[in-house]
Amino acid sequence: MKRLVTNSLFALLLLANASAAADPLRSWNDTAPKKAIVAFVERVTKPGSADYVPVARRIAVFDNDGTLWAEQPMYFQALFIFDRIKQLAPQNPEWKKKEPFASVLKGDLGTALAGGEKALLEMAMATHAGMTTDEFSKIVTDWLATAKHPKTGQTYTEMVYQPMLELLAYLRANKFKTFIISGGGIEFMRPWVEGVYGIPPEQVVGSSIKTKYEVRDGKPVIVRLPELNFIDDKAGKPVGINQHIGRRPIMAFGNSDGDFEMLEWTTAGQAARFGLLVHHTDGEREWAYDRKSRIGKLDKGLDEAQERGWVLVNMREDWKTIFRKMEK
Amino acid sequence: MKRLVTNSLFALLLLANASAAADPLRSWNDTAPKKAIVAFVERVTKPGSADYVPVARRIAVFDNDGTLWAEQPMYFQALFIFDRIKQLAPQNPEWKKKEPFASVLKGDLGTALAGGEKALLEMAMATHAGMTTDEFSKIVTDWLATAKHPKTGQTYTEMVYQPMLELLAYLRANKFKTFIISGGGIEFMRPWVEGVYGIPPEQVVGSSIKTKYEVRDGKPVIVRLPELNFIDDKAGKPVGINQHIGRRPIMAFGNSDGDFEMLEWTTAGQAARFGLLVHHTDGEREWAYDRKSRIGKLDKGLDEAQERGWVLVNMREDWKTIFRKMEK
Repeated sequence: MKRLVTNSLFALLLLANASAAADPLRSWNDTAPKKAIVAFVERVTKPGSADYVPVARRIAVFDNDGTLWAEQPMYFQALFIFDRIKQLAPQNPEWKKKEPFASVLKGDLGTALAGGEKALLEMAMATHAGMTTDEFSKIVTDWLATAKHPKTGQTYTEMVYQPMLELLAYLRANKFKTFIISGGGIEFMRPWVEGVYGIPPEQVVGSSIKTKYEVRDGKPVIVRLPELNFIDDKAGKPVGINQHIGRRPIMAFGNSDGDFEMLEWTTAGQAARFGLLVHHTDGEREWAYDRKSRIGKLDKGLDEAQERGWVLVNMREDWKTIFRKMEK
Repeated sequence: MKRLVTNSLFALLLLANASAAADPLRSWNDTAPKKAIVAFVERVTKPGSADYVPVARRIAVFDNDGTLWAEQPMYFQALFIFDRIKQLAPQNPEWKKKEPFASVLKGDLGTALAGGEKALLEMAMATHAGMTTDEFSKIVTDWLATAKHPKTGQTYTEMVYQPMLELLAYLRANKFKTFIISGGGIEFMRPWVEGVYGIPPEQVVGSSIKTKYEVRDGKPVIVRLPELNFIDDKAGKPVGINQHIGRRPIMAFGNSDGDFEMLEWTTAGQAARFGLLVHHTDGEREWAYDRKSRIGKLDKGLDEAQERGWVLVNMREDWKTIFRKMEK
């Protein structure tokens, strides 16, 4: 009996050691970014460390498009909008003659997007409003279950970055709360990010349209209105962080100049702070783009990262794997 | 040595038992509300129960004024606004002749408030905007450290309800996430609710004004603007819940008709749901008010609580203690 107990204890210790030895960031090469992440996390979580951060203040914020999942040839939510326009066209015959809808229906996405953010916003309003929040959530879920990426043929939630999934899990294992701070629609992300990233809906911040509470036939619903509420991009990101979180993060992760202010706000805080930009350098395994890109432009961030002490991830060099490893 | 180990283990077991036996809701009498709370929590947390709710969905929402702390003779934030007006009067000489400011400066709060919500909002804008979020947080913290309630002479954070503090702790011990959903200002609550209620800033939803991110002399700040952003009251509460939490709570606690829609939205959800209204019936230990009250009016809620299955707390009968027990 005593022998048995001792052996079991020994087996448990072995297991504990093995689990400690398994690399939580195994899809990252042992280059500078991984070392910087691990060094920072150890510095702020080690009791007695001069830079120790109590659990309640371990807030890490992540951009979504281009940081947690891909964003080429255009934001996946834009592709969702185009599909919605095609689907809703029969009920909106006037769209055949009205831009930017007419170009979308003709398959000419370039012309449809020539109107820039304003055109995209108009299309988002027309396709994201007029239903309840529950109905919209189902529309998003159904689309993600079947829609395929035009280049890779994968579903969109297969195109999330494996190294970032590991990073999210590593931070949570170190008692960080992980938040998404995205220019994308908050209600477009909430239906799936819990399952895919392990981030619950209350830790998602995004752009939004206004909503209204009402009771329909005795049943309360929240209805989506075609009116802009908040754009969570650029200088809107620190505003969104303040509104939803109410305290300054200690780590921020982005990939484009839309994340510049989020990193600036995060890393200007007192004590230990960490900023990181994913630089899309891998034209073979993913896409290579930065200063001149229409989507996910990274220009100012490239210029200033070094001076500001932000870590730059060179996707081609620093990531062993790009996309999520799916269990078949 | 063996004897010592056995004794230590025995002592540990005793301690564990004692702690399990201690009543987590000891300031509640053993009347219907306490029984209903405990029965519900056991029902949704017991593995294998037909009504079991996974940890991620254990969301409980609490109104603040009149539910977690007192709200008479008027909302404590209104008293803060009046103090701010007196303090800022020298820089705003025009207030002497401008209502509602003039009446506040004369000490005639009745006239100042005759303009209703609009007047209060105007005063809030004038006193809550124009500074950074960090500066405002310090103003609130400094005020709460010294300001005394006109009737009890206590500081305002001493006037939180002991039974509700126990309820918050009990729910969290059962792995609920506790949120505040208040008509009060979100930035007025965040500086102190973590210390007093154990609710972190990211779990606070409230009314807000707009803010703007800017870099001043190389230092990023978030500036408070005199422009309304969101009123988190009545039908605004389900909207605020959806915006911040993105999923329907399973328990909701309020005290006035301003909380009606929050309870309606929560308890109309599928599966097990719980709604509770605190009825202020104790004119001796606190205040007695309901249908006719200017502050915290409870009329429709009283009419419909029974039919809707909401629990009514009769403060006089159901609470052993009213206010927080302070460690001296």
